[in-house]
Amino acid sequence: MMPRVARIDTLRSEPGCQLTLRPDELCVEEPLEIRIAGEPLAITMRTPGHDHELVAGFLLAEGLIRTRADLGSLVHCGHLGAEGFGNVIDVLPAPGTVLDIEALGHTRRGTLTTSACGVCGRTMISDLLARLTPAPPCAPFARSFIASLATALRTQQPGFERTGGLHAAGIARPDLALLTVREDVGRHNAVDKVIGRQLLDGLLPAHGALLVVSGRTSFEIVQKALAAGLAGVIGISAPSSLAVSTAARFGLLLCGFARSTTFNIYAGAHHLEPDQPLETATRSRTREI
Amino acid sequence: MMPRVARIDTLRSEPGCQLTLRPDELCVEEPLEIRIAGEPLAITMRTPGHDHELVAGFLLAEGLIRTRADLGSLVHCGHLGAEGFGNVIDVLPAPGTVLDIEALGHTRRGTLTTSACGVCGRTMISDLLARLTPAPPCAPFARSFIASLATALRTQQPGFERTGGLHAAGIARPDLALLTVREDVGRHNAVDKVIGRQLLDGLLPAHGALLVVSGRTSFEIVQKALAAGLAGVIGISAPSSLAVSTAARFGLLLCGFARSTTFNIYAGAHHLEPDQPLETATRSRTREI
Repeated sequence: MMPRVARIDTLRSEPGCQLTLRPDELCVEEPLEIRIAGEPLAITMRTPGHDHELVAGFLLAEGLIRTRADLGSLVHCGHLGAEGFGNVIDVLPAPGTVLDIEALGHTRRGTLTTSACGVCGRTMISDLLARLTPAPPCAPFARSFIASLATALRTQQPGFERTGGLHAAGIARPDLALLTVREDVGRHNAVDKVIGRQLLDGLLPAHGALLVVSGRTSFEIVQKALAAGLAGVIGISAPSSLAVSTAARFGLLLCGFARSTTFNIYAGAHHLEPDQPLETATRSRTREI
Repeated sequence: MMPRVARIDTLRSEPGCQLTLRPDELCVEEPLEIRIAGEPLAITMRTPGHDHELVAGFLLAEGLIRTRADLGSLVHCGHLGAEGFGNVIDVLPAPGTVLDIEALGHTRRGTLTTSACGVCGRTMISDLLARLTPAPPCAPFARSFIASLATALRTQQPGFERTGGLHAAGIARPDLALLTVREDVGRHNAVDKVIGRQLLDGLLPAHGALLVVSGRTSFEIVQKALAAGLAGVIGISAPSSLAVSTAARFGLLLCGFARSTTFNIYAGAHHLEPDQPLETATRSRTREI
C-alpha cells in the first residue's frame, strides 16, 4: 500500500536563530487515473488509500452510477512493485450496465453540446442538478447533535494532526454519532471517499445522515451530498453563495462555521428540532441584571 | 459587474439560546466557461471579477499561451443584463497564433493518447512538467522578508475578512513588498488571477518574485508558479509531498506554515541569504543562564 504520510527533514526559521533542521511529516499527494473498461476518464490528485471508495464516490457524484449494483469490478492496473503501481484504477460496469462516459463529458469537460454565445456555465449547473431530487423528510436533528460534530470530526483526523495538510469528511447519524471519516489532500476527494464507502456498503441513499466537512462548503460539496441522498452538510468553515442557494432549492440542511458549541444555519432550518421556550426563570434572571 | 460578496440573513445557534437571525455575508461562487474562438474549453467555479486575469493565468499554466503576445482578445459573451451574462468568456488568439486545445486534452481531460494498462497518472505529471524550466538564479531573499509575507497577505484580504470563504494569492518582490493580491473561492483561481495580472502587464517570467498563498500548497500551485517563472512559493499552511518534490526538482523555494515571524523551508533553501553568525554576546548570555 502506498504511504499516506511522508517523512522529511525541514528547515525551521525563527527570528534571531540559525536555521534548524528537524524531522517533519508531509501529506502524500499522487495522481489517480480513473479508467472505465480501459478508457481514461479522469485524473485526480489525491492521497493514496481508500481508492475504491474514492472512485465509487466520484462516479456517483458524476451521475455515472447510482448504486453498488452498477459496479462490476474496481481494480488497480499494472504490477505490484512497478513504479506508479496503485495510481491507475480500472472500473468494469456490472454485466448489462452501461457507464455513459459521454454524460461526464457534457457536465465536466466543457464540451457542451451547444456552444451558442450567451449560453453560460449555468448549463453545467443545470445538467448536474437535473438528476438530483430533494432529500425526503427525516427525523429532525437536535442542535446539540450538530454542535457536537465539529469536535467529533476533529478527533478523527490523525493525518491532519501529523501533517496539517489533509482535509477530512465524515458521515454522521444521530443514532451512531460519527460513523466514517476519510482524509485526503483534496476536499472533494475526502467527500467522495466517505460517500463511496456508504455506496460500497449498500447504505445509499443515506437518508437522515449528515456530511461533515473540515473546510469550506462549495457548490460541488452540496451537489455530492444531494447525489448521496444526505439530509445535510455541516461545514467547519464558510459556505459559498451557490452552495447556499443550491441547498435551499433542494431542502438540504446547510450549516457553517461549526465550532464546538456554535454554528450558523444557511439553509434547511426545517431539519432542526423546534426551539424549546427558554425557562422563564432564566429569562427573569437575565432581566434583573 | 457581478458582485463578489452576497448578503444573507443567517440563523445563529448558540447553546442555551433561541436561534437568532442576523445579517451575514457570503463569498459569491459562479461558473465561468472559458472558450477558445467559440469552442468550449473548460468550466471553473470562481468568484466573479478579474475574469480576464483568471483566463490569462489559466491558459499560461495549461501551456496554451506563453506571453501576452499570444492573446488577441478576451471578451465576455452575450448581452449586458441578460441572465448569466459575465459567466462566459471567449478567447481569440493573436493573429498567427494557434492555441492548441488538444494539448490541454492530453494533460487535463484524462484523454491520454496511450491507454496501455500500467501507464499511470504520472504521465500527466510528466506532460505538465516537460515544458517547465528551472527558475534562473536571482538575488537571495532575507528571511525577515519571507517572514513578513504572511501578515502582508492577511492585511489585503477584504473578502476573506467579510465572508471567511475566500482564498488569496499575492505576488511579492523584495523591492516592492506585496505587489498584487487577488481573492477567489478557489485556491487555484486566486493563483491564476494574480499570475494572469502579471502576464497581462508584461511582467512574466516573474524572475526574483515570490507567490504567496493563503492555503495549502499542492502540486498544481507549484506547477503554476514554475510556469510563471517565479522564484518560490510561500504558503500559510502545509505543502504536499508532490509539491515539495517538484519544487526541489526545479530549484524552487518552497516555504510553508508561514506565520508572522516563523516559517518552514521545504525546498530551495539556496534562495535564502546565508545565516549571519549570531552575536557572541547573545550566545554568551544564553550560556550564562
